[in-house]
Amino acid sequence: MKIVETFDALQEALLRLKRPLGFVPTMGYLHEGHLSLVKRAKQDCESVVVSIFANPAQFAPDEDLDNYPRDIDRDLELLTGVGTNLVWIPSVINMYPEDFQTWINVEQVTKPLEGQVRNTHFQGVTTVVSKLFNAVRPDKSYFGQKDAQQAVVIKQMVRDLNYPIEIVICPIVREVDGLAMSSRNSYLNEEERQAALCLSQGLSKAEEAFHKGEKNAEKIREIVASVIDEEQLAELQYVSCAHPETLEELEGEIESCLLSMAVFIGRTRLIDNILLLQPKT
Amino acid sequence: MKIVETFDALQEALLRLKRPLGFVPTMGYLHEGHLSLVKRAKQDCESVVVSIFANPAQFAPDEDLDNYPRDIDRDLELLTGVGTNLVWIPSVINMYPEDFQTWINVEQVTKPLEGQVRNTHFQGVTTVVSKLFNAVRPDKSYFGQKDAQQAVVIKQMVRDLNYPIEIVICPIVREVDGLAMSSRNSYLNEEERQAALCLSQGLSKAEEAFHKGEKNAEKIREIVASVIDEEQLAELQYVSCAHPETLEELEGEIESCLLSMAVFIGRTRLIDNILLLQPKT
Repeated sequence: MKIVETFDALQEALLRLKRPLGFVPTMGYLHEGHLSLVKRAKQDCESVVVSIFANPAQFAPDEDLDNYPRDIDRDLELLTGVGTNLVWIPSVINMYPEDFQTWINVEQVTKPLEGQVRNTHFQGVTTVVSKLFNAVRPDKSYFGQKDAQQAVVIKQMVRDLNYPIEIVICPIVREVDGLAMSSRNSYLNEEERQAALCLSQGLSKAEEAFHKGEKNAEKIREIVASVIDEEQLAELQYVSCAHPETLEELEGEIESCLLSMAVFIGRTRLIDNILLLQPKT
Repeated sequence: MKIVETFDALQEALLRLKRPLGFVPTMGYLHEGHLSLVKRAKQDCESVVVSIFANPAQFAPDEDLDNYPRDIDRDLELLTGVGTNLVWIPSVINMYPEDFQTWINVEQVTKPLEGQVRNTHFQGVTTVVSKLFNAVRPDKSYFGQKDAQQAVVIKQMVRDLNYPIEIVICPIVREVDGLAMSSRNSYLNEEERQAALCLSQGLSKAEEAFHKGEKNAEKIREIVASVIDEEQLAELQYVSCAHPETLEELEGEIESCLLSMAVFIGRTRLIDNILLLQPKT
């Protein structure tokens, strides 16, 4: 496994990789969710490139950039284990030099949900992903369904900006007890870790109701909200029952939806989601 | 010479071209200025791709998109003559489908000069150039110094977004009498065509003064303004003496500058510029 830092070293290393090329952008502190993306890329492609970059542009000043967990040695060991060919670890100063001034904005699908509570988040995400795509020029790139809105935003950007890149969205990987894997789970103490189960439990309860016939968007949101409400350490930031592609909030009778939420467990902000789809008849 | 319209046909045609690949984006109605870019690309690269697309996003509603001159047959004949390998002529609906919503903004160098009088112009330019770059993935791309600010903006975007593309800026091509070549010159009637000489004449007069020792930015702008003022059919929109890279307007004693202007000749808006540089000692 080759490891590079500079843009020039990356370009040189890329010349030696066989196509098709799969690319997995990460912020490091890898878990099974990330590794599932690399494994899938490895199945689909001749070579796999992974980037590790905790992108400052997608954190607001009051967010957790400075505390974001890091363990590069462990990350590299994990990436070797799943057959990664090339790891790119760019520096902040190379990615955002002093006169940096170019931003990519996806205008509509960035507005609701995470975009509503994290104003500049998606501008940071789309800009850095575009930079990574331009530098790596992959054939396919892999993202997790865990960041459901991010997946929608990236797919929109790729269509709009004519990237000849196939975006593959992989399922959420969960702990045995249901908690969606996230680098931020490392912030949780033992009590909070237990409390954090309310997210997946809320989704499961709503899913069960949906499949038993509950099709009212407001009712589905209420089922989630009441599960979160029962958990003392949890505070619901939002719960949304939205159109899976446009992300517009749905009202009344629905056929399918992206059911998603953000919840504070103590000071840790967690997100989770599930796609509720009618079984094909 | 292969001609393609759709994105998929482009991708297939690109696979057959030898690298390095040179790319010349145009809005059509080609003249010797465009052809000088293709010729230069042909010298530098194994294959040359030209796009023809009058990009609606870089025209304001009150600008001349609907009247912008078009002659595809003549364009294709000219491109064949200079050894172009592939011409991409995308459609507006393919480039901007109904749910299109992604824009690229270069924030600082787009603000002065053309950006000040054409608010959304550069957002349209950077977005379409990024789309074209993503679809074509060239090694080098060629732009004219005629659109001096555009050249600065594109270079900034390429650095900021990590495009592994070398941007080559080629000199302004002028008619024998000095008028900078432009597709928009076709709007001029005989009398206006004569009046339009005031742009290059103003630049020449300022250049001469600069090399004779006039180093005051305000004075240099005045020299240009007074030449334009003498021409009855001409109305100066702006004249600028700016830093060649940051495009910040300069005051007082200068060492070098981008001297540029926009002038209405009747209803036709023309631009021209010259780099004033100290001779290297």
